[in-house]
Amino acid sequence: MRIIRSIRGLQAWRRKYENQEIGFVPTMGALHEGHLSLIRQARKHCSTVVVSIFVNPLQFGPTEDLSRYPRPVKSDQQLCRESGVDLLFWPTSEEFYPKDFQTSVKVSRLSCCWEGEARPTHFEGVTTVVTKLINLVRPRHAYFGQKDYQQLLVIKQMVQDLNMDTKIVRCPTVRESDGLALSSRNRYLSERQRLQSARISAALRHGVQLIKRGTRHVTTIQKELKKVLRTAEGLDIEYVAVCDAHSLARLTRAKGSMVLLAAVRIGNVRLIDNMLVKV
Amino acid sequence: MRIIRSIRGLQAWRRKYENQEIGFVPTMGALHEGHLSLIRQARKHCSTVVVSIFVNPLQFGPTEDLSRYPRPVKSDQQLCRESGVDLLFWPTSEEFYPKDFQTSVKVSRLSCCWEGEARPTHFEGVTTVVTKLINLVRPRHAYFGQKDYQQLLVIKQMVQDLNMDTKIVRCPTVRESDGLALSSRNRYLSERQRLQSARISAALRHGVQLIKRGTRHVTTIQKELKKVLRTAEGLDIEYVAVCDAHSLARLTRAKGSMVLLAAVRIGNVRLIDNMLVKV
Repeated sequence: MRIIRSIRGLQAWRRKYENQEIGFVPTMGALHEGHLSLIRQARKHCSTVVVSIFVNPLQFGPTEDLSRYPRPVKSDQQLCRESGVDLLFWPTSEEFYPKDFQTSVKVSRLSCCWEGEARPTHFEGVTTVVTKLINLVRPRHAYFGQKDYQQLLVIKQMVQDLNMDTKIVRCPTVRESDGLALSSRNRYLSERQRLQSARISAALRHGVQLIKRGTRHVTTIQKELKKVLRTAEGLDIEYVAVCDAHSLARLTRAKGSMVLLAAVRIGNVRLIDNMLVKV
Repeated sequence: MRIIRSIRGLQAWRRKYENQEIGFVPTMGALHEGHLSLIRQARKHCSTVVVSIFVNPLQFGPTEDLSRYPRPVKSDQQLCRESGVDLLFWPTSEEFYPKDFQTSVKVSRLSCCWEGEARPTHFEGVTTVVTKLINLVRPRHAYFGQKDYQQLLVIKQMVQDLNMDTKIVRCPTVRESDGLALSSRNRYLSERQRLQSARISAALRHGVQLIKRGTRHVTTIQKELKKVLRTAEGLDIEYVAVCDAHSLARLTRAKGSMVLLAAVRIGNVRLIDNMLVKV
């Protein structure tokens, strides 16, 4: 596995792989089984696999966890090596965002609801960094987890709107045995919080079951979801919603392709999860 | 010369030219000798030359001349053919901006002064459309005229910030024999206005001469420039400035690489021009 830190180095490397089908997994490091499942997908379908590790300052709000975000450099490298990654791109913030940097990419409608409301500059940071990375790596396929469902939709919309020559591949959320969606932020949880947090996926699963069994009234579904969430002590609900799976518009009646979204706080840890369901 | 109207058609064409050095000239049509000089540059340096013609609605303000902007389709095609263009990409607005289109690319600092102040959404429209076109055409080189100097800087900044794999080439402004910079909007001018408009380049030339002969005090230079402009009847000055050629910051003393900028109105036609000078 090659490790490249400079933009120039990456561009030189890329030119030698002109006719290769590159599969790309952009990450912020602190790799877990969720990331590894993305890498396995890329490995299966593409001749060359590139992973980037970059804790992107642009996507953190001023009060968020940028400085304490985990950066286990050595074990991340080891995991990439073991997963058959061909190239690890690991740029520096100084080179990625030089002093005169002033360009941003914004997806308007899909970015302003849900996570966009809770984290006003988040998606602009995500779409800007993903544009830069895609322009550098020029992958045929780029892999994103369903876990960050709104991010996935925002990036798909951007790629389509800007006519980028990359296919965005959605990969299933990987979960702990009790259902908690894997996230690099789970390591912030105390043992007790970790146990409580399993209620998030339990609530979503309950919602999916209700819909599958015929409940259509969204207010009812949401009430039921919240009931499950409230069985966890010290869990604050930020939002719970039944939305159109494409537009993320809040529904009043369950219909078509839907996504159930949840965002909660446990202590000072913010967790999100979602599940898809169709009727 | 091939003419392609659909995005899918262009993408299919592009895949066949994977290892070609493409030179790209994006235009809004109404081609004149200025555009043709860009095409000649591309023809000289690249194996394949692509021209796009697209009157981009995003870069027009609500009170601007989108609907009356000239669209001489037949003669534009003929000029491209005669200039040895390999591919003319001529998309439709409906396909380029479908109903759910919602992504924009923005260069903040360089876009907010001068033309950006006069035309608040203009550069965002330009950078968004150029991003789309560059992603589709994937050129090695893209050619822009110095005539729209701020646009050139904004696009260069964007390409650098977003790590696009394209080199932006600045081409000299082409002028009429009396000095008026060629522009598709010149055809809006009455015969009388056309004569008056030569004062713009005369003023800029005078400014350059003053600096070359040692004048450093920018207020003096600007006064002199305005004096020349005021010899034209019915010409309203929007701005005249001596700026740093890289940052476009207004200078108080002439120094380093500079650009002299002018924007004026003659009747309801808005004209811009600029000249570079170094001390």
